[in-house]
Amino acid sequence: MRNIKLTIEFDGTRYKGWQKQKDVATVQGAIEKAIKKITKEEEIELHGSSRTDAGVHAKAMAASFLTNSRVPAERFREAINTKLPDDIAIIKSEEIDENFHARFSSKGKMYSYTIVNREEKVALMRNYSYAVKDKLDLQKMKEACKYIIGEHDFNAFKSAGSTVKTSVRTVHNIEIIKKDDIIKIYVSGDGFLYNMVRIIVGTLLEVGKNKIKPEEVKSIIESKDRRNAGPCVPPNGLVLEKVFY
Amino acid sequence: MRNIKLTIEFDGTRYKGWQKQKDVATVQGAIEKAIKKITKEEEIELHGSSRTDAGVHAKAMAASFLTNSRVPAERFREAINTKLPDDIAIIKSEEIDENFHARFSSKGKMYSYTIVNREEKVALMRNYSYAVKDKLDLQKMKEACKYIIGEHDFNAFKSAGSTVKTSVRTVHNIEIIKKDDIIKIYVSGDGFLYNMVRIIVGTLLEVGKNKIKPEEVKSIIESKDRRNAGPCVPPNGLVLEKVFY
Repeated sequence: MRNIKLTIEFDGTRYKGWQKQKDVATVQGAIEKAIKKITKEEEIELHGSSRTDAGVHAKAMAASFLTNSRVPAERFREAINTKLPDDIAIIKSEEIDENFHARFSSKGKMYSYTIVNREEKVALMRNYSYAVKDKLDLQKMKEACKYIIGEHDFNAFKSAGSTVKTSVRTVHNIEIIKKDDIIKIYVSGDGFLYNMVRIIVGTLLEVGKNKIKPEEVKSIIESKDRRNAGPCVPPNGLVLEKVFY
Repeated sequence: MRNIKLTIEFDGTRYKGWQKQKDVATVQGAIEKAIKKITKEEEIELHGSSRTDAGVHAKAMAASFLTNSRVPAERFREAINTKLPDDIAIIKSEEIDENFHARFSSKGKMYSYTIVNREEKVALMRNYSYAVKDKLDLQKMKEACKYIIGEHDFNAFKSAGSTVKTSVRTVHNIEIIKKDDIIKIYVSGDGFLYNMVRIIVGTLLEVGKNKIKPEEVKSIIESKDRRNAGPCVPPNGLVLEKVFY
């Protein structure tokens, strides 16, 4: 059997997240269905690097599947694309070591989160951003990042509902870039807990609104108590930008 | 009667363009319906600065309507927004001179056109860009702009179906900006013929693909013959950025 790795871009607006569910549109479900139209009666299972929530997008989700099909690895890209709806795109297909697993082999990920920071209602970017009306102190938000970057127990930045052995993670970098009324926050790390990026952004926004002091973020992390961190911001601003192997 | 000017952002994906049509979703139709919920039995008519096509977007369309309503001008913004779907947003509402007409008072407009220039299928930006796979020579495209900027008879850059007295227009500026695989083309001018911006972009793309030489654009304009210019590119890459008064 060959192991085929896919790199996938998708618009998550229409989907109830990545993970397959019965009678519900999911990204994994849509791609598996498309692959099966090519591999015919073969049962395939697609393993993704991340189980993104409903409304979250990806520019380069990684996923892999085992197949006995004779289709050349690089041909899968176009073959699957012709069977997919227009909000999912296979960017690359390649053969990879049989031990490769999109989730367990991952060495890190980068996410971006987009905020439209203005007083007016947002129409054009509504499915790809979070609209924040308050004035934000970017300098203070950048200062707060210093306390988040590094290896920490991020239990305070984890939503209930996931069972992981440890909540220790390393955030490699956070970058905040503003252009006109668009603020982009890039967060990279070795891995992320459930909703961790969205809670980091929610906490940074509390700092930007002067509700939390930058240096307080240190004690929020140390408290390991979810109630002390900021809210989990909406999913549609979030994009999985890259998975590192 | 007071004349109220609105500045409007909208996502044109779901609409059959700006102009009201019976039994069809249009931006003008949706906003008039929302206004009437506020002005009650009063018949109002909204005059827009541009009759954008299906799929075209706007960051700042201008429009105005006459009303006897006692609602303060600046309050219309939020009042109308609460009655609108989430893909249309009133950005500003203000009282304006009774002689103001969004179309006839306009001194100029700026449009942007977004191209995703890559070999791979595009999922995320599909409704807001035109995907071009060919390699593009940006330098030659910029060179071609020199022949378009200025006052010319743009009859070669006009789709059939509009009746205007003259096809002489002045293009003030064209700017081409590339970042990663995104190319943005900003076109500003005193006014545009039917599909003129999309035909300018289509012609620039032919230049970028080395199918037309930059200096040939001069004779294409002079020919005044639509068949000599490039194709009309799809509507979804187009955004009305600004209307000048």
